[in-house]
Amino acid sequence: MTPFENLHLDIPATDKKRIIIIGGGFAGIQIAKGLKGNDYQVVMLDRNNYHTFQPLLYQVATAGLEPDSIAGALRQLFNDYPGFYFRMAKVTQIHPQEQKISTLIGDLKYDTLIIANGSKTNYFGNQDMFNLTFPLKQIPQALNLRSHMLQNFEQTVLTREEDEKDRLTNFVVVGGGPTGVEVSGALGELKKHVLPKDYPDIDFSIMDLHLVDAGPRLLAGMSEKAGAKALEYLKGFDVNVKLNTVVKSYDGRDVVLSDGTVIPAKTVIWAAGVKGNIIDGLPEGAIERGRILVDDFNQVKGLKNVYAIGDIALMKTENYPNGQPMVAPVAIQQGQQLAKNLIRASKGQEQKIFKYRDKGSMATVGRNRAVVDMPKFTIGGFFAWLIWMFVHLLSIVGFRNKLVVFSNWVWNYFTYDRGTRLIIRTFVRNKSYKQGETL
Amino acid sequence: MTPFENLHLDIPATDKKRIIIIGGGFAGIQIAKGLKGNDYQVVMLDRNNYHTFQPLLYQVATAGLEPDSIAGALRQLFNDYPGFYFRMAKVTQIHPQEQKISTLIGDLKYDTLIIANGSKTNYFGNQDMFNLTFPLKQIPQALNLRSHMLQNFEQTVLTREEDEKDRLTNFVVVGGGPTGVEVSGALGELKKHVLPKDYPDIDFSIMDLHLVDAGPRLLAGMSEKAGAKALEYLKGFDVNVKLNTVVKSYDGRDVVLSDGTVIPAKTVIWAAGVKGNIIDGLPEGAIERGRILVDDFNQVKGLKNVYAIGDIALMKTENYPNGQPMVAPVAIQQGQQLAKNLIRASKGQEQKIFKYRDKGSMATVGRNRAVVDMPKFTIGGFFAWLIWMFVHLLSIVGFRNKLVVFSNWVWNYFTYDRGTRLIIRTFVRNKSYKQGETL
Repeated sequence: MTPFENLHLDIPATDKKRIIIIGGGFAGIQIAKGLKGNDYQVVMLDRNNYHTFQPLLYQVATAGLEPDSIAGALRQLFNDYPGFYFRMAKVTQIHPQEQKISTLIGDLKYDTLIIANGSKTNYFGNQDMFNLTFPLKQIPQALNLRSHMLQNFEQTVLTREEDEKDRLTNFVVVGGGPTGVEVSGALGELKKHVLPKDYPDIDFSIMDLHLVDAGPRLLAGMSEKAGAKALEYLKGFDVNVKLNTVVKSYDGRDVVLSDGTVIPAKTVIWAAGVKGNIIDGLPEGAIERGRILVDDFNQVKGLKNVYAIGDIALMKTENYPNGQPMVAPVAIQQGQQLAKNLIRASKGQEQKIFKYRDKGSMATVGRNRAVVDMPKFTIGGFFAWLIWMFVHLLSIVGFRNKLVVFSNWVWNYFTYDRGTRLIIRTFVRNKSYKQGETL
Repeated sequence: MTPFENLHLDIPATDKKRIIIIGGGFAGIQIAKGLKGNDYQVVMLDRNNYHTFQPLLYQVATAGLEPDSIAGALRQLFNDYPGFYFRMAKVTQIHPQEQKISTLIGDLKYDTLIIANGSKTNYFGNQDMFNLTFPLKQIPQALNLRSHMLQNFEQTVLTREEDEKDRLTNFVVVGGGPTGVEVSGALGELKKHVLPKDYPDIDFSIMDLHLVDAGPRLLAGMSEKAGAKALEYLKGFDVNVKLNTVVKSYDGRDVVLSDGTVIPAKTVIWAAGVKGNIIDGLPEGAIERGRILVDDFNQVKGLKNVYAIGDIALMKTENYPNGQPMVAPVAIQQGQQLAKNLIRASKGQEQKIFKYRDKGSMATVGRNRAVVDMPKFTIGGFFAWLIWMFVHLLSIVGFRNKLVVFSNWVWNYFTYDRGTRLIIRTFVRNKSYKQGETL
């Protein structure tokens, strides 16, 4: 018996137009919010029952926060919303001709379809990386990395061979974007302030942190100055940054870099890139570089009543000829705007074209350090770190989450401590923990 | 390659006497604390890297608290303790003749051995119950129950057959001790206040809660009055309590009770009893009813320099001819007293016999209700509930945990909400999640 037998994707019939939203990420929750109070039946489908605040996933992985702090149950977010239906289901196919989608538990017709299922880790076709490295896109992945890391330190204490101790305590982070930089900074902080107290039997001078990026600088999506400052801060945390370098091979024990360096490391964190979660059934011309081609109104190329928003959408504009950045603010703004456009269209009003309002971008690098790109200037250091904290607290879902995250940060800051050092998932190196992801 | 290859249980050699403590539960952490500052090498072995505050496990299972709130990393508890060594290892054999223990990663000699590895779920030899029901003794088990419960509600929404909806929403709790009573009360509260908001598409009148106990009353370890009050409170939460009743069979779908009743239920919580975690190698005469026979000083019968404390120890005294109650206060007091006795013995002073100071016992039954047995009287209701909260907050490990638990309780109380409704473990019904437990 499969777990899906006897399950049916039933939604009550109604006179209202049905809008199906695939995905409860930043884009999906914004458009759902924007449609509230209007005359639609809104159906949200997600394979998880929660929204993930991805910018703080790295803190779950590095024992700074528990998952409930950075996630919101989707039903809870919308539990005061007549006409809203959440169903936990993975969409496997879109049938634009029949205006319906297929899931593992049945089909569902739509009047309007919103594809907002975001992006996944891009292994660039490398099977070893897929099998052996740790991605950081989902909560179970962050928990796996946390348990794995703590297990490795417990094993280091029980190991006699010096080279094996080295291998257990070394970390290689691949990718110098915000995720790679932030997780490297957090690891540097753990090495400096937290782990030596817990493991007096380990000599932490053997623990090496490496950040590898194929490009000539860090934070390629931000300003030159931000990249340079991030590099400086990471060096302060003893992170060895290798630019213009790629990983040539990894066998679970040794990382071989393109410059010939061999780094013994049982932990490789793969933050080298993302690609769209493409669902089958879209016309070929609508897909470009793993994303869905949309016009200035987020409408999918060649399809009526089908829209894509957020990371999955490739919208080329004058300012962004290669598509909008794959970041939360774009997803949020596209979700908000598309909701307004749909409502305008239903009233016969003119729709507005999307224009990304870049309010700045930022990355934190361990304790007391961050870089913030504002539209006109870049700042770094302690003040940038305060801005980073403030903005993330404001953005995180729900008052309770804000409170919990804030208390944890205050605690961690003043005690140089981490509260969540429990090994609760016995890590087994296989694919199952990647939650149905495929290369 | 097994995961244990190349791992070694090495502890630095020293002139000091080595005390090995098996288990970081209530008894283990108390004796370790009590020995601090004395001239011993103290080695603590536990298969987990954390202490679990078991009295609140049911709140993790019912989405009230996250695991980090009720657990403390053992290294963190003792990170300012010269001569203390923690090793994550499961002890498989005791060799009293050679004064050593065996683990999966090697042997270790002791001068004094403290067995404090507590108790595990007692399935009374029933393989079906072991395979198909949910125990509540460890954090991963509580997380499994939480994910399973939430998955069941998601599936209920997707189910057409009325009898299957019934089966998915019904809960049977087996055992009317504190764990059974507390988890039943928490489920009643979820049904009444939390779940209907999240699942407007489910008619919660179909959700039946059953508590089954073999004895004539609830909370057999507490006063008659406490048992009667708990029964009254549970009825107020619509929990159907069946006394003098046992589960005859369960196939994962239907529970058959000894009175012939058949309850369709995909969730059976097994809180029917516990038994000692007996380790091989003790003389046969030292084991009775699944516990280790000890004298008034917690010394194991027939063995020199080997002690057992907490749930695992069977100490018969005038007040407790069948052994001390298997509760946290006994474990705590035995740990504290044995530490003092060992120090006294090393100074040639007389050791003191153990006498359990029963300061009262308590159980909570959902929102605003608890029962508290004091040595001379019993109280119930709201005031008892306040006492219950106060005592549990005082007892929980570490200031940070107190703060987090308190904030969560305040939030849950005033919002009628639960923060931790994430399905983060895909539940598969097999034995692996029972963490190496065997029937």
